[in-house]
Amino acid sequence: MSKSTGCCQGFLHYVFDYETPKTLIIPSIRVGFVFRFTQFLVLLYVVGYVCVVQKAYQETDSVISTVTTKVKGFAFTNISDMEPRFWDVVDYNIPPQGDGSFFVLTNVVMTPGQTQSRCAELPNPSTTCEDDCDCVEGYNDPRGNGIRTGLCENYSSIVKTCEVLSWCPLEIDTKLPKRALLAEAENFTVLIKNSITYPKFNFHNKNACLPSSRRNILSHINSTYLKTCEFNRKTDPDCPIFRLKHIVSEAGEDFQDMAVKGGVLGILIDWSCNLDWWGRKCYPKYTFRRLDNKHPDNNVAPGYNFRFAKYYRTAEGEEVRTLIKAYGIRFDVIVFGTAGKFGIVPTIVNLGAALSFLSLVPMVADWFMLTCMKKRDLYSRQKSTYLVEESEVESASMSTTYGTQ
Amino acid sequence: MSKSTGCCQGFLHYVFDYETPKTLIIPSIRVGFVFRFTQFLVLLYVVGYVCVVQKAYQETDSVISTVTTKVKGFAFTNISDMEPRFWDVVDYNIPPQGDGSFFVLTNVVMTPGQTQSRCAELPNPSTTCEDDCDCVEGYNDPRGNGIRTGLCENYSSIVKTCEVLSWCPLEIDTKLPKRALLAEAENFTVLIKNSITYPKFNFHNKNACLPSSRRNILSHINSTYLKTCEFNRKTDPDCPIFRLKHIVSEAGEDFQDMAVKGGVLGILIDWSCNLDWWGRKCYPKYTFRRLDNKHPDNNVAPGYNFRFAKYYRTAEGEEVRTLIKAYGIRFDVIVFGTAGKFGIVPTIVNLGAALSFLSLVPMVADWFMLTCMKKRDLYSRQKSTYLVEESEVESASMSTTYGTQ
Amino acid sequence: MSKSTGCCQGFLHYVFDYETPKTLIIPSIRVGFVFRFTQFLVLLYVVGYVCVVQKAYQETDSVISTVTTKVKGFAFTNISDMEPRFWDVVDYNIPPQGDGSFFVLTNVVMTPGQTQSRCAELPNPSTTCEDDCDCVEGYNDPRGNGIRTGLCENYSSIVKTCEVLSWCPLEIDTKLPKRALLAEAENFTVLIKNSITYPKFNFHNKNACLPSSRRNILSHINSTYLKTCEFNRKTDPDCPIFRLKHIVSEAGEDFQDMAVKGGVLGILIDWSCNLDWWGRKCYPKYTFRRLDNKHPDNNVAPGYNFRFAKYYRTAEGEEVRTLIKAYGIRFDVIVFGTAGKFGIVPTIVNLGAALSFLSLVPMVADWFMLTCMKKRDLYSRQKSTYLVEESEVESASMSTTYGTQ
Repeated sequence: MSKSTGCCQGFLHYVFDYETPKTLIIPSIRVGFVFRFTQFLVLLYVVGYVCVVQKAYQETDSVISTVTTKVKGFAFTNISDMEPRFWDVVDYNIPPQGDGSFFVLTNVVMTPGQTQSRCAELPNPSTTCEDDCDCVEGYNDPRGNGIRTGLCENYSSIVKTCEVLSWCPLEIDTKLPKRALLAEAENFTVLIKNSITYPKFNFHNKNACLPSSRRNILSHINSTYLKTCEFNRKTDPDCPIFRLKHIVSEAGEDFQDMAVKGGVLGILIDWSCNLDWWGRKCYPKYTFRRLDNKHPDNNVAPGYNFRFAKYYRTAEGEEVRTLIKAYGIRFDVIVFGTAGKFGIVPTIVNLGAALSFLSLVPMVADWFMLTCMKKRDLYSRQKSTYLVEESEVESASMSTTYGTQ
Repeated sequence: MSKSTGCCQGFLHYVFDYETPKTLIIPSIRVGFVFRFTQFLVLLYVVGYVCVVQKAYQETDSVISTVTTKVKGFAFTNISDMEPRFWDVVDYNIPPQGDGSFFVLTNVVMTPGQTQSRCAELPNPSTTCEDDCDCVEGYNDPRGNGIRTGLCENYSSIVKTCEVLSWCPLEIDTKLPKRALLAEAENFTVLIKNSITYPKFNFHNKNACLPSSRRNILSHINSTYLKTCEFNRKTDPDCPIFRLKHIVSEAGEDFQDMAVKGGVLGILIDWSCNLDWWGRKCYPKYTFRRLDNKHPDNNVAPGYNFRFAKYYRTAEGEEVRTLIKAYGIRFDVIVFGTAGKFGIVPTIVNLGAALSFLSLVPMVADWFMLTCMKKRDLYSRQKSTYLVEESEVESASMSTTYGTQ
Repeated sequence: MSKSTGCCQGFLHYVFDYETPKTLIIPSIRVGFVFRFTQFLVLLYVVGYVCVVQKAYQETDSVISTVTTKVKGFAFTNISDMEPRFWDVVDYNIPPQGDGSFFVLTNVVMTPGQTQSRCAELPNPSTTCEDDCDCVEGYNDPRGNGIRTGLCENYSSIVKTCEVLSWCPLEIDTKLPKRALLAEAENFTVLIKNSITYPKFNFHNKNACLPSSRRNILSHINSTYLKTCEFNRKTDPDCPIFRLKHIVSEAGEDFQDMAVKGGVLGILIDWSCNLDWWGRKCYPKYTFRRLDNKHPDNNVAPGYNFRFAKYYRTAEGEEVRTLIKAYGIRFDVIVFGTAGKFGIVPTIVNLGAALSFLSLVPMVADWFMLTCMKKRDLYSRQKSTYLVEESEVESASMSTTYGTQ
């Protein structure tokens, strides 16, 4: 036998000798039952909880979405402060483009005919004055409405206030109507078109480009139905046309209350999808929630309003604007959701974790066997051997370590 | 030997006695090969699939992005219905701010000179009338255009309809041009600036604040190139300036078709990044898709349009508006992506799962050894010992359980 | 014993016989210490790193958010080029609705009195001409300002340029003020209201609908404080009112610099939450960053600007517009964050991975025992048995494989 052959064989032995644990078989039905039962519990967790309930074998992805909205409806207002007026969608829907966030005007403080000029400030403790000395020229009161000119003018017959340079006449927004001007807005409807996609699962196959995305107008719906339907959780859960009053009341609010000072309302579309071919399920689920804080305790400027203006030019070329403080409901369409689809990595990871727990099962069974069974001493003696350090062992034959004469 | 010493030693034995399984070495090359081969397969999965293909050792984070857009181009229209008109970006780009969603007007129904007044409804089965009795005063037909005054008026010489209070004259949107008014819009270009960041990986180090974010204008691009380039998937894949016609045609649509009734087009920017220093890769990838449903089967209001108005005041102070029903293409810049970077937890979890599977390998080898090998009985007898319940075993010496005389 | 009973008993033995590895106990404190120490390291990693630092036992979810903003402040401008003018929020805040992205105008190039007409192009190498032959009628120069009429006109007394059909007079945007027009804008303040929710953790319990969402106006803040406070990282970290100058300077920029050509500034609100009842923590954290590229090297159109117009009608009915090229700062409120809450699946997966590593510990101890210890030969002989292939073994008694006479 040459040296290299021996070396090679040694290597082969090192690599291919298979070392397997010696085992002791214990024919006890109680120990066996504990073993199998523990195993069963682990498997139950894996199959039942991880696979069925949590679907942990799935890869997930977040939704990408586009929203188009279209409000419909008109109203006629005839209140004492204002001329009779007809309102259509162009008048009350801002911005007009119909994206995921749209505003429906419900109440308004209008200040027509504002020009760049001078006028007496609205009276409040910091603006009232006795004579010009009380008004510092150029002073810019952050809570005021303009730059002081240094004069003290009559605001009314009883009170004098500092004159300011501003858009005059100043807006008096305390005269907000108690009943919302566009109370009829509760009967306006909105059509929401929403198309979503899950990029991780769909963008791979170029050919299946169109089927990969989904719309909230489901495929079994025809256009005749769409022309007349109205969303109702029980009777028409798939109709994408919503009556504003219905949205607000599902959010637990009263439309007329909310319309006075405005607010923000979320139209939440949940697109949680299961994309596995067994159990495919991918439908939108609508919920509605008020998103702003209506409690006035720790709230600045409760409700929702903003100011905008329509600018005109007089025949003489002077710029005039109609200032509009618009109160109303902003509807935010919020699309969210997670899609799950079978994925190898999460499956392997979860199986691996389960296997780890399976490898704990013998420990449990061993513990039971060695502490709770009557014959535990017998088992213990036969299972574990204490190291024999007697020198005679070392002189024993190599091939059979034990079993010496 | 005192009691406490014994107790202490017992405890030391309990804690530090090392219990190792006894093993049987089987010098069979076939069993060894099965063992090593199975081991190899598991390792291949771990290294090849989990690490290289899926990069499961990475932590992931979702992108945060800001988009600025700027449309360029102008057009001149000269059709019979309308005065000759020059259109620049201010006229056709709505909203003007240039954020992630911008609209390019391509077709239009204009109704100039609307005032709050009374006029006869557009004729349709529910609005035609014979005399005033057919028109209920104050009735608000949701599919009509205003509040009925109760009168029946001549709409034309042949048909009489109920009079309504509304913005008159009413819009007649059936006269939509068959060929898009701004057909030239296909040659408009848009510059998209997009800057992204991955908060989980970048916000930690304050100093590296700027390099932590990325832009779609890559660092090797200079401003001379940017002034003349135009995106082309083959020749200029990094140029952030897109011709509208090119976007639409890459989405598989025809611009002129789409321009007539409008639509929604997604400019998808995929920022899937690998942030590990080996194999760093983080570039935007552009794709284009039509996002609205162009099939008229289950579709209400196909295409994309919205109404807005320009408000004027006459010399007499009366409010007049030009109502514009704008058809066009809304471009939504949708930025998505996931960045991955080496993370300890996912690495450990995936290694752990792989180890669990490695611990299955001996089972496979054992099974092979005990069922498929010729010498399976020999192996089985030497590997497993059946519990010996004879009383003589109990009387055997404690130190060496087996190997009795 | 009937056959079926035997078969049944065989099956019971197969299922319930418990096979446990035989072990060798080694009373060596050094091996035991290596074993326990390695075990301790793994446990330390699991408890310390995975649980405490990384909170890997948590399920995570991404934030859903709504933002409302309200800018306050006014300014007065009096520069030579323009009439003295008072600016309030309606004039400089675009769009007015106050959503998550708002623009504050700081500099402006105004071109009043534009009408659809003809005028000479702005002079540059491609527009100057000698006579009409240099100007092709109908030519649409993408870098020009209109459609050429074919005439060559005097632009000034020294230069002649091609006449174009456009909105005339043309905008001359090179006259941008060096010092920002609305320099005072640095003292404007913005109130940001942000309400968020984590759908995975909160939408389950219908009753807890309101507490499930959180606001950046924390519950311990009262409205008196809100009326006067101003955000400051040290003294008022919870105040939702921000001075624009402060935002810009925290982003490391100078407001006056940025105001001249505009820019995009991110107000990042980090809502990283820990929702476990031990250690609950869920507060907004504000950071500010400039999002556009201010370096002019590889940048087209640095800064941020857009054009919009105010449309008027003259007494004769002609449409006139004031073109406004608005430079300013766009503030993007970007809300991000991940909430974590104890979840069974991630806990099990991470525990499983840790267990896998624990199962590696005996390998380490075995390796140490069999290579580094003096008595390694003794250990090796007693631990591993080489397969005995002698025929006498086969004839040995079945019950005790080894140690026969």
